Amino acid sequence: MKQRKPISFKIEKKMAGLGRAGILITPHGEIKTPAFVTVGTKATVKALTPEMVSALGAQVVLANTYHLYLEPGDEIVRDAGGFGKFMNWHGPTMTDSGGFQVFSLGVAFGSKVGKLSKVPQGENEEAFVVEEQSGRLAKIDEGGVTFKSYKDGSEHRFTPERSMEIQHNLGADMIFAFDECTSPAAPYEYQKEAMERTHRWAQRSLDAHHANDEVSSKQGLLGVVQGGRHRELREESARVLGAMDFDGYGIGGSFDKDDMTTAVGWVNAILPEEKPRHLLGIGEPEDLFGAVENGCDLFDCVAPTRTGRNGTLHTRDGKINMRNAQFVRDFTVVDKECDCYTCKNYTRAYLAHLFRSDEMLAGTLGSIHNLRFLVSLSEKMREAILSGTFEILKEEFLERYRKTVER
Amino acid sequence: MKQRKPISFKIEKKMAGLGRAGILITPHGEIKTPAFVTVGTKATVKALTPEMVSALGAQVVLANTYHLYLEPGDEIVRDAGGFGKFMNWHGPTMTDSGGFQVFSLGVAFGSKVGKLSKVPQGENEEAFVVEEQSGRLAKIDEGGVTFKSYKDGSEHRFTPERSMEIQHNLGADMIFAFDECTSPAAPYEYQKEAMERTHRWAQRSLDAHHANDEVSSKQGLLGVVQGGRHRELREESARVLGAMDFDGYGIGGSFDKDDMTTAVGWVNAILPEEKPRHLLGIGEPEDLFGAVENGCDLFDCVAPTRTGRNGTLHTRDGKINMRNAQFVRDFTVVDKECDCYTCKNYTRAYLAHLFRSDEMLAGTLGSIHNLRFLVSLSEKMREAILSGTFEILKEEFLERYRKTVER
Repeated sequence: MKQRKPISFKIEKKMAGLGRAGILITPHGEIKTPAFVTVGTKATVKALTPEMVSALGAQVVLANTYHLYLEPGDEIVRDAGGFGKFMNWHGPTMTDSGGFQVFSLGVAFGSKVGKLSKVPQGENEEAFVVEEQSGRLAKIDEGGVTFKSYKDGSEHRFTPERSMEIQHNLGADMIFAFDECTSPAAPYEYQKEAMERTHRWAQRSLDAHHANDEVSSKQGLLGVVQGGRHRELREESARVLGAMDFDGYGIGGSFDKDDMTTAVGWVNAILPEEKPRHLLGIGEPEDLFGAVENGCDLFDCVAPTRTGRNGTLHTRDGKINMRNAQFVRDFTVVDKECDCYTCKNYTRAYLAHLFRSDEMLAGTLGSIHNLRFLVSLSEKMREAILSGTFEILKEEFLERYRKTVER
Repeated sequence: MKQRKPISFKIEKKMAGLGRAGILITPHGEIKTPAFVTVGTKATVKALTPEMVSALGAQVVLANTYHLYLEPGDEIVRDAGGFGKFMNWHGPTMTDSGGFQVFSLGVAFGSKVGKLSKVPQGENEEAFVVEEQSGRLAKIDEGGVTFKSYKDGSEHRFTPERSMEIQHNLGADMIFAFDECTSPAAPYEYQKEAMERTHRWAQRSLDAHHANDEVSSKQGLLGVVQGGRHRELREESARVLGAMDFDGYGIGGSFDKDDMTTAVGWVNAILPEEKPRHLLGIGEPEDLFGAVENGCDLFDCVAPTRTGRNGTLHTRDGKINMRNAQFVRDFTVVDKECDCYTCKNYTRAYLAHLFRSDEMLAGTLGSIHNLRFLVSLSEKMREAILSGTFEILKEEFLERYRKTVER
């Protein structure tokens, strides 16, 4: 008897090209796509209650396997009933595979691994890559990755099977296959080798997931396409993973920022159309447009909450930094076209005061605003796809947004 | 024509002795007393939205004149429509006089000025006092106090007139006369001298307040009784200030903690019965019982939010520290008899995780719980006064609360 699928995806409307609007049904409710996925790293969306997350229109929360494994430990989260119940979030949930953090935090190559960050170029490139791959804090072999905790240096090992076990304990509606996230500075040969290993890990993740009927009927498993910046690798990864029995796909790893949307298009032209696609780690408005028109349904990023806590807030006219002196006596709201709790109740002057005083409420109000900005933009993109006006929305939005550089 | 009073107080029921339950009517609504006043130092109750403050049953927020004067400045708060509107709190508001912070932060004698803290005793007492009173950061003369900012060392001066002007700008429903808050270590002669100066400042505060009809019809002014630990000074202060035309009274300054409730009784036996009384800086359950049975209607303290942010939470059975290892796998709630948002939605294990991870939500959930604990206790005391069962409540509550030392 064929098992019931834990998640299902229905495309409601397709654009010319790859973009589409849909509905993703999970055991904890529907997600209308395209949708911005809110990051709740350690089973908390930083500075927000789940009610605030829900009130700003967020539909789904993604927690980090690596962080929850280290603190408080996935068995405690399991005993609490899964991370959604643990944190009092009753909607759809996701966990990542732990791969990204193992490689970025474990090897400690820091911002250089940022999926979309500019990469150092020039004669030292290979030496740099070698240093990363032989880094003291993470060691890759065919079986998995041995790494040291960013917290206390203790040694740990993730394998595809272990990642599945941990993600089963964390209990999210959607989980990811264990993948190797390469540095954008790695050479072609290494990207190819790592991608092929990721494909073998993908099959092992699938096998481990389906070995447990009880969890695989409740948790959907998404494969993660890799392949760096190289078209032939990206297309091969999409073909290989697309043929496997995943419930959906993540697109991970390193791109050049400028070519990111093009590369996403290569991948989504090959991946099975009827399955949902999640572009990992994307949070700038420009990137959201590129991702959606190239066929992505979901995207997540820590940027809106991280920058929101630091005082850098989105407006329809670009970003503003609330710590700047010009806002100290500004009794208008952050963005008069925004319908978020922050903009409905507080002035720029009050936010400037809170940020300058390092008050905790500053981080709460800034995060709510930035998250609502991206959630609202996702809702607008969805409406535009449904009404056939995506190109108009994109042009009008980006023209205004880009006109003003950060103040 | 006699001006309409900005606040009025109605006693609903008196206990044997000095205690009473009442209703205090302010321009922004009623306060049912006894009531715990929530502290919102810089026009924000740290880590909480005003909706959270309201939902936990808090009726009134007190902001600090000293802090708001320095940051963002009282004129900005005035232009924002007063601190209540600035922070999106629509209920009753208070500001203190700025005196306590000028003396405690200005002279930098730190915790030693804590109103109820133990004082150093012995042969160095007088030298210690002299050092404080000649401290580099604050200088007292008959006109007022010159002090340096704790933030940047810049020089400022508060006088009774200036305190009134600032508090008019801050716009609270109830404000306090400018007073000198002495160290508990100061000798009798100095306490007497400071008290007499405080009485002259009280009259000047009244004069400055009533010179402005527009504000004095909207903001009630409370005089602050001083006199240190000495019965004759406390009684004299209550007599002198009680004869002045204040809308209510604060009881400030230094006591011995053990004798605090006795000293409050001396004062309240003399103060006009029909006016509300606020005991400044009290927040421990034991002290609330002592304050209420000795005739206080209001009390405020930063302790519940400060300790709540650090993980020390009240329970019916004493305080517990959520960082302790015993709570890591404890899936019960903080206090099963508590009706707060935190106890309704989160386990001790989740709180332990948040505190150990230094997540911002920890401070929010801890503050909500501790504030609700004290607000709820105030509500219970009020009900007990109304139903004539205060003594039973006090005995039962304190027996359980004291049985367990902090874990």
